[in-house]
Amino acid sequence: MAYLNDNYLKLRAGYLFPEIARRVNTFCETHPEAAKLIVRCGIGDVTEALPAAAVAAMHKAVDELGHRETFRGYGPEQGYEFLRKAIAQHDYRVHGLDIADDEIFVSDSSKCDTGNILDIFAHENDIAVMDPVYPVYVDTNVMAGHTGPVNELGGYEGLTYLPCTPANGFVPEIPTNRVDIIYLCYPNNPTGAVATREQLERWVTYARQHEAIILYDAAYEAYISDASVPHSIFEIPGARDCAIEFRSFSKNGGFTGVRCAFTVVPKSLTARAPLSPDSEPRAIHPLWARRMSTKFNGVSYPVQRGAEALYSPEGKDQVRSLINHYMENARILREACASIGLEVYGGVNAPYIWVGTPPGIGSWDFFDMMLEEANVVVTPGAGFGAHGEGFFRISAFNSRENAEEAARRLVEMDF
Amino acid sequence: MAYLNDNYLKLRAGYLFPEIARRVNTFCETHPEAAKLIVRCGIGDVTEALPAAAVAAMHKAVDELGHRETFRGYGPEQGYEFLRKAIAQHDYRVHGLDIADDEIFVSDSSKCDTGNILDIFAHENDIAVMDPVYPVYVDTNVMAGHTGPVNELGGYEGLTYLPCTPANGFVPEIPTNRVDIIYLCYPNNPTGAVATREQLERWVTYARQHEAIILYDAAYEAYISDASVPHSIFEIPGARDCAIEFRSFSKNGGFTGVRCAFTVVPKSLTARAPLSPDSEPRAIHPLWARRMSTKFNGVSYPVQRGAEALYSPEGKDQVRSLINHYMENARILREACASIGLEVYGGVNAPYIWVGTPPGIGSWDFFDMMLEEANVVVTPGAGFGAHGEGFFRISAFNSRENAEEAARRLVEMDF
Repeated sequence: MAYLNDNYLKLRAGYLFPEIARRVNTFCETHPEAAKLIVRCGIGDVTEALPAAAVAAMHKAVDELGHRETFRGYGPEQGYEFLRKAIAQHDYRVHGLDIADDEIFVSDSSKCDTGNILDIFAHENDIAVMDPVYPVYVDTNVMAGHTGPVNELGGYEGLTYLPCTPANGFVPEIPTNRVDIIYLCYPNNPTGAVATREQLERWVTYARQHEAIILYDAAYEAYISDASVPHSIFEIPGARDCAIEFRSFSKNGGFTGVRCAFTVVPKSLTARAPLSPDSEPRAIHPLWARRMSTKFNGVSYPVQRGAEALYSPEGKDQVRSLINHYMENARILREACASIGLEVYGGVNAPYIWVGTPPGIGSWDFFDMMLEEANVVVTPGAGFGAHGEGFFRISAFNSRENAEEAARRLVEMDF
Repeated sequence: MAYLNDNYLKLRAGYLFPEIARRVNTFCETHPEAAKLIVRCGIGDVTEALPAAAVAAMHKAVDELGHRETFRGYGPEQGYEFLRKAIAQHDYRVHGLDIADDEIFVSDSSKCDTGNILDIFAHENDIAVMDPVYPVYVDTNVMAGHTGPVNELGGYEGLTYLPCTPANGFVPEIPTNRVDIIYLCYPNNPTGAVATREQLERWVTYARQHEAIILYDAAYEAYISDASVPHSIFEIPGARDCAIEFRSFSKNGGFTGVRCAFTVVPKSLTARAPLSPDSEPRAIHPLWARRMSTKFNGVSYPVQRGAEALYSPEGKDQVRSLINHYMENARILREACASIGLEVYGGVNAPYIWVGTPPGIGSWDFFDMMLEEANVVVTPGAGFGAHGEGFFRISAFNSRENAEEAARRLVEMDF
């Protein structure tokens, strides 16, 4: 008799974005005229054309595959040397950060990596997530059996939720209970907050003292405009001993449909075997290498060439233009919200703006109001966790026209 | 204190192909002249150019991404409708098999899928694998904690190994102990064997009687030349209630570097919750859908367009030509082995030839002899499991020139 993984049965049915899609679809079916006017500022998906440098590189690579002399079959599971080297060099070593080529693991998605990384850790770890939180961190832990059932606040028993609020600048306090694995995401999705060097130093100090590991999601680092804000956890001394970093080409190179990302696992990072915690800590780099060799087959060759091209001088310029485009949208949307007296966070070093709902209006009610009255789709903060209640997220990933239109309608809303 | 998954520590250090690579590299370093002559018939990787239909479709898709009007960001995690429909239609429905579009889950790799599928099953299942076996099935179960330590035969405690031998035509007998999940792979890697309709019927009957689930790997189905041999487990009545099928574009369309595959999960397939085995069985399709939505982000858009093009009339012709090419290699290599009196299996409905080593010579010794004396790389059967000892695998994935040269050198070997 085959048994299913009943941890899946603990998952709430409506993952945030499917629930949004359901409400939007229902509205569109019942309001076909208004449906034509909808401006979507919900899901964080890029809208602008792929950089020309990536397009050219992908064409060239496809042609290589079309001729037997230059055909390539299976590539290295961890990524081609040309890309691992470009990443390590341009994202780390030119900034003085000591990351070797073979500490870079190229993958098709940071979402996959932040879920799959649990494969190499024991079930004995106590897990901490931020609240509000990118739902994938939570759901993958539920699936892996690291939690109890969902509670009345929508949280899961057994996870430590670290509140992120205006009072702490959306950077959580160091926990008082023991945690072994901590997810941090800066620039943050959904709050658009960044962590200062001092805040990250406190986390690295905690992690090293407690032999904890920080899973650092830096998928939005390209949006940092403030020169004092760290782009990488590895800018903090000691982080090589306590952190894994996730980065993606989705939001800098507009690769959400192309699919390429990477994870940095320092060779100096260690953890302990749960059955012999007093024995020497073991390196976890070989475990991730083994995991990827066994359960992954590498990223599509033309995609890796496309990603490499983002590091060329033209590629860098084109990425910069994309980011400037989205950040101008962020400015427009942020200022619109502020102009009507809403509390506004983020949107300066991140493509997300985190906005307090008007007094007395909950997240999902505000979502419905915006959909029905302004025909603008935002993301209700409560969908990201209990501490997201009372907020909504606006994504700056849009055409200029749509961003301006959403801003105009927001200003005209009557709360 | 962070804990690592110590099940990884049970894995034998040398995954088969890395060990082969190590021996070949050592030989090449110490024999630089012979190194130039090496013919590789080891790893099953395609060598011929990507079909022109796929190349054209990928170019077109890359261009679409290069213009904002036709740009696409995140696609559906389960694959675009256009590809799911093409697969369900051409691979199943035209053959009279009842598979719906939304029972197809597009992914980047069957290797990933056969590993990841364990996510949705409980640890309580008893797992059966064939012996010899594609090592990924075993290693992913070790990583998931479904086994004890490795034993002196190279097998893992807690797994049921189903011997595949010349006596049973490399199709295992129905087990006498209870098993809940059974991996079957036909056409088989490594033995090149196929399963008849009657043999598969027996397995489906067993699975339905015991509420077991068959994980059916049909990555090589395009190589079947015998009209009586099933291409899909779903040709067997009742299989929709007890089987998941894995297929790939790697070996038909030469997509090993492009990366696209798919998994078929029938909506009628069920399993039980381990804590309440007496309650109603639950559908597992929603679990896999949830798994893919949460831990996967879909396959690269240009890649999906490339895969779709393999189903066009030109694409089908080009795939057929590739298969004919490799199967002519198989014939040449098979006949060479037979001509020197070796026991030869496979290579008729599969691109792998499974050959008995000369009397008294073990798999790895034969591997070394072939490398050192003929400068031909084969795969030692023992690397696939205890019942692979006394055999070696030759892959037909090669240029004609290399296949002919390998055959010539084999015939000249002096055993």
